[in-house]
Amino acid sequence: MYDGIIQDLIDEFGRLPGIGPKSAQRIAFHILQTQNFDVSRLAELLTEVREKVRFCEVCGNITEQERCSICRDPRRDETLICVVEEPKDVVAIERTRQFRGLYHVLGGAISPIDGIGPDDLSIPALMRRLGAGDVREVILATDPNLEGEATAAYLSRLLTSIEVPVSRLASGLPVGGDLEFADEVTLGRAFEGRRQV
Amino acid sequence: MYDGIIQDLIDEFGRLPGIGPKSAQRIAFHILQTQNFDVSRLAELLTEVREKVRFCEVCGNITEQERCSICRDPRRDETLICVVEEPKDVVAIERTRQFRGLYHVLGGAISPIDGIGPDDLSIPALMRRLGAGDVREVILATDPNLEGEATAAYLSRLLTSIEVPVSRLASGLPVGGDLEFADEVTLGRAFEGRRQV
Repeated sequence: MYDGIIQDLIDEFGRLPGIGPKSAQRIAFHILQTQNFDVSRLAELLTEVREKVRFCEVCGNITEQERCSICRDPRRDETLICVVEEPKDVVAIERTRQFRGLYHVLGGAISPIDGIGPDDLSIPALMRRLGAGDVREVILATDPNLEGEATAAYLSRLLTSIEVPVSRLASGLPVGGDLEFADEVTLGRAFEGRRQV
Repeated sequence: MYDGIIQDLIDEFGRLPGIGPKSAQRIAFHILQTQNFDVSRLAELLTEVREKVRFCEVCGNITEQERCSICRDPRRDETLICVVEEPKDVVAIERTRQFRGLYHVLGGAISPIDGIGPDDLSIPALMRRLGAGDVREVILATDPNLEGEATAAYLSRLLTSIEVPVSRLASGLPVGGDLEFADEVTLGRAFEGRRQV
């Protein structure tokens, strides 16, 4: 709809996840018209992020060095490994401040519909880490959805070969939620996992 | 929450309108992980858009030349001027294919709350264009909200000095809408502006 480069910029923003044509237009005009928005900074970061950011050679988390800040931290408990799907999940768990072990980022979840099988995930690296001994618990913290559950089930079967306790994060009612609005699967899980008080 | 540059990129995206921290994180990871997303292209466009895109010296619409593609088009009717707030509004009206005249982009609307008065809009340029004669109708197509209505009222008073017919876009029920869901102001306007059939 626009002439030349502004339309190119709108199109390029429209390719990003969660940005429709209207938002892309709004962003492009914001960049064009807001003088104190530092375009060169954003342009630099876009180029640098691909060059500098890589995956931790131990756990697969993102880092700008060979090993991520968590794997480098000597205060972390090396005998606990929490298995997650994505680097974003590491951040989510770190925010709870409840876990002081290390992570293993699979890089996704098993999803036949998207053509993602166990071979596409960093499972061999996990097995090597566990094979090196010393680990006293593996916590499966994949998402509580179809793909995440399938991945957790696959991993727990695989891990029976190694004699290490495997746990899965609890499912149940979200804190601050309302019982009447919980879906039946979540409420069912909350019943299953009930604890004596 | 993240280390270094990826967090910087998330922060930078979070500064754009309509992008919250969660969306910014999603976009940053998309850029990091999607190999066929052309980051250098987006980075280039960001820099170029500020350098190359400017405002048409006649109407204030965006262009990469001195005059925009509409002002350059000899088939457009120079005796009709449609006054709008933003370049986006030009695109919206062009999409209707109902208007073959020229535009005048004010660059905003009068809004005392945001400190925008008539002097901040390109009103002198509009008066010069109208003073040059030949114009047989000015269509005020500012937004049908408080600021747009105030701007239209201001302009219509100002334009009484020049003897040129001034019109305002019709307000009423949106086509495809549902009468029962129309707000009372819109419905009131639809009554006021009713036409004999």
